[in-house]
Amino acid sequence: MAANKVTLARLAAHISGRLEGPDHTELTGIAELASAGPAELSFLINEHHLEAAKTTKAAAVLISNSLAPVSLPMVWVSDVPEAINMALELFAQPLKPTPGIHPSALIAPGVNLGHDLAIGPYVVVQAGTTVGDGSVLQAGCYLGRDCLIGQQCCFAPGVIVADRSQIGNRVVLGQNVVIGSEGFGYRCRDGQHRHIPHLGAVRIGDDVEVGAGTCIDRAKFGFTVVGRGTKIDNLISIAHNVHLGEDCLIAAQTGIAGSTKIGNRVLFAGQVGVRDNITVGDGVIAGARAAIHQDVPAGTAVYGVPALKREQALREQAVFRRLPQWPARIKKLEKRLTDLESAADHRQRD
Amino acid sequence: MAANKVTLARLAAHISGRLEGPDHTELTGIAELASAGPAELSFLINEHHLEAAKTTKAAAVLISNSLAPVSLPMVWVSDVPEAINMALELFAQPLKPTPGIHPSALIAPGVNLGHDLAIGPYVVVQAGTTVGDGSVLQAGCYLGRDCLIGQQCCFAPGVIVADRSQIGNRVVLGQNVVIGSEGFGYRCRDGQHRHIPHLGAVRIGDDVEVGAGTCIDRAKFGFTVVGRGTKIDNLISIAHNVHLGEDCLIAAQTGIAGSTKIGNRVLFAGQVGVRDNITVGDGVIAGARAAIHQDVPAGTAVYGVPALKREQALREQAVFRRLPQWPARIKKLEKRLTDLESAADHRQRD
Amino acid sequence: MAANKVTLARLAAHISGRLEGPDHTELTGIAELASAGPAELSFLINEHHLEAAKTTKAAAVLISNSLAPVSLPMVWVSDVPEAINMALELFAQPLKPTPGIHPSALIAPGVNLGHDLAIGPYVVVQAGTTVGDGSVLQAGCYLGRDCLIGQQCCFAPGVIVADRSQIGNRVVLGQNVVIGSEGFGYRCRDGQHRHIPHLGAVRIGDDVEVGAGTCIDRAKFGFTVVGRGTKIDNLISIAHNVHLGEDCLIAAQTGIAGSTKIGNRVLFAGQVGVRDNITVGDGVIAGARAAIHQDVPAGTAVYGVPALKREQALREQAVFRRLPQWPARIKKLEKRLTDLESAADHRQRD
Repeated sequence: MAANKVTLARLAAHISGRLEGPDHTELTGIAELASAGPAELSFLINEHHLEAAKTTKAAAVLISNSLAPVSLPMVWVSDVPEAINMALELFAQPLKPTPGIHPSALIAPGVNLGHDLAIGPYVVVQAGTTVGDGSVLQAGCYLGRDCLIGQQCCFAPGVIVADRSQIGNRVVLGQNVVIGSEGFGYRCRDGQHRHIPHLGAVRIGDDVEVGAGTCIDRAKFGFTVVGRGTKIDNLISIAHNVHLGEDCLIAAQTGIAGSTKIGNRVLFAGQVGVRDNITVGDGVIAGARAAIHQDVPAGTAVYGVPALKREQALREQAVFRRLPQWPARIKKLEKRLTDLESAADHRQRD
Repeated sequence: MAANKVTLARLAAHISGRLEGPDHTELTGIAELASAGPAELSFLINEHHLEAAKTTKAAAVLISNSLAPVSLPMVWVSDVPEAINMALELFAQPLKPTPGIHPSALIAPGVNLGHDLAIGPYVVVQAGTTVGDGSVLQAGCYLGRDCLIGQQCCFAPGVIVADRSQIGNRVVLGQNVVIGSEGFGYRCRDGQHRHIPHLGAVRIGDDVEVGAGTCIDRAKFGFTVVGRGTKIDNLISIAHNVHLGEDCLIAAQTGIAGSTKIGNRVLFAGQVGVRDNITVGDGVIAGARAAIHQDVPAGTAVYGVPALKREQALREQAVFRRLPQWPARIKKLEKRLTDLESAADHRQRD
Repeated sequence: MAANKVTLARLAAHISGRLEGPDHTELTGIAELASAGPAELSFLINEHHLEAAKTTKAAAVLISNSLAPVSLPMVWVSDVPEAINMALELFAQPLKPTPGIHPSALIAPGVNLGHDLAIGPYVVVQAGTTVGDGSVLQAGCYLGRDCLIGQQCCFAPGVIVADRSQIGNRVVLGQNVVIGSEGFGYRCRDGQHRHIPHLGAVRIGDDVEVGAGTCIDRAKFGFTVVGRGTKIDNLISIAHNVHLGEDCLIAAQTGIAGSTKIGNRVLFAGQVGVRDNITVGDGVIAGARAAIHQDVPAGTAVYGVPALKREQALREQAVFRRLPQWPARIKKLEKRLTDLESAADHRQRD
């Protein structure tokens, strides 16, 4: 993605900010005040930024409505971080490689290719596979047999899609993503493990995005499913027959074990673990490193190891935090009690 | 793996089930009742399945001996999930690519290739390496120098095997597996870290299977070892000089630190961590997310962070679960004691 | 890396050991006593090694000053493990592939290549990228557009470097490392997640080493930074806009969330997690599996989930370990108190 040139006026309109400065100044990107160049936009979120604003080379700034004006062209907004995110959309020039198929790409006979594809060097597409219009397969991607790849997909270099995978439209797969890896299922016989053949596949909905190095195993039979609009971060392991709902956000290094069902609009922070064969309801939020070992009802926020409902986790945490004061209190009680007992004893003997 | 056609009679014989229905019906695979097609086998495990059985399009069902018959061809079995796993073996058609070496594969002079190999496009095999009969190297695999690869191995696309690795027979490596990566060992001198050269390699026994994205580092000297029959899941990190025994099952995202010895028939659930330079005995079971920080005797089940023996972990968990009731009990004790003391005090003053 | 031949005299000089044996004996590597061959060096660290020393085939041994002599050529040292590490430096023959560009490597027009490069088969280098003198790109590496790669770098097979990455001199990237993957940042609108374009890049300092399968995301704007001399292990996730300092050691499967700043000389053991937008000071040490959820001051050692200062973590651990004895003590207190109360009650009624 290279950067577009954007005028201050267009920027202000796009982010619904109030421009105080020249309409036609052209910007090429965003940077912090200290590092911004003379064609770049910068930003002031709070008073900590005021000092650096005096010496910045930035052409203009996004500035919080809560601050006093500075001596630079300004676009006033109420939420600067959100304005930055929206501005990035303007500067971003979507990756649009020249359509075409690199001569080193190996497309098997019987592959069904759409229009306006961009297929990079050393790509391999096996027989029976369909690739929809406008999709991009960057260098070294591998598509197995009998896959269905939708339109406007973008696969980064090194993506591997195993046989029979079904991938929707506008799906973005990061570098070295593996779709359809072998499921981890064994039958034990006489102390030895025999692999259970996994004849199923992976089905990925429209608008799904998957981060670098993530592996999604195929199903024993039927499909491992990732629902429409779900975004998955880097180095995540999704096991055979998992059903992951729509519009979820799953952060890095999370692992979801076999046959577990996850609802829609679920948010997992990083390094979450979910055991096999359970159900996590719609809208569940799991804190970083949560270990989910049983069903979680819809709409619940869970934290900790093992994962507990937020309120319970906070209550337990508060109890734990006061733990170190208890032994002293108990010892004191024992001492007072002993004193009382010996006094009572004394009285009795009187 | 595509699916074989299997007659009901052959299926019943293979899984030792009792067939109630036509011998010759041909099945092409397994699916749940709701999604099964007219040539597919489905299954009834418990009463929850009875309703869907009324409308399924399945050609026949595996049915638990504990259920009442349904109006479909049936194969009666005692353990339906196990019967499904066995049936999958029947339907599975082992990946058997046409033997041959793709013209784009780069095989260095001095490589020793066996018979009936299937070597895919863009494979690279460096000098001094041997590949045994019947092995499959899928697209883009890389084998370094002086490796020994056994017979009937199957390496998925993107596998990287570094120099001097020794790999047994029938070894299955998943997509993007790395064997023989650099060990993470440094000498600190004047605050800077100098890498310790790792001149060793990795040795992998017969019938080992390794999941997608897993990395096994080579030894400083000698070998990092994975024993015969051990199965390793996705995105696992095995450090330099680890010795992992035979017939182990290691689930996803587990990490084993340097020089640690793991026995035979060990089972690790997902996201386990094992520290460096310790010994985990034969038959040890570690629960998901266990953090093993010291030697574990053979035959022990361990859970938690830090990992404790199962009984101790359960006992501590029970104590923890009752913790929130204690502060109230202690406060009540203090109150009662104060009352008693003031009464005693009162008496004394009388 | 193949092994050099090293004479005993040169070895003794290099590791500052005292040689008791023939100067000119040539050694080819290091092995344990039981497995050493007749041209190999072995070692005796403590008395446990004395028995195996009687039957070893090793040509010579490193021996601790604290032990009695054995009947083999010996090099006496005070710290045997450190001597082994130094000896490995001698035996190691740095990977020095013959310079040259494999005919299958695709170097775009406008790429700026230095001298003495070794570029392997199926490497792809996109337009606008510079590669410094003496660098090695092994098979299947991919460099995107407009990257700056320094001198004497070594990228293992399968490395992917995305557009605009800036990589210093002598940087070592392991197999399947991804530099510059898409950042995981979304704006939520009407329950759907829209990706925030990440126009920034990754900047990696001199002498950095990165382990196999690790992914470093690019910044929203500006740079995700890895400082000079920092060493990163396998399967680590470093998110967008992280700043990682100089001379750090980060062990396997650690994850660092977005925009977090990590100081210099930081040591993280394996499977550490660090939340987003916090600051970890210089010289911080984090134990394995630590979950760092707030700023950590410089020079602090932290442990546990959530990560606490070492002393606090140890104190809490000690309290926890005594927890199981408390319920009994509290119950005893309650019993004694009840006895006292009923006695007092009795007296009063008298």
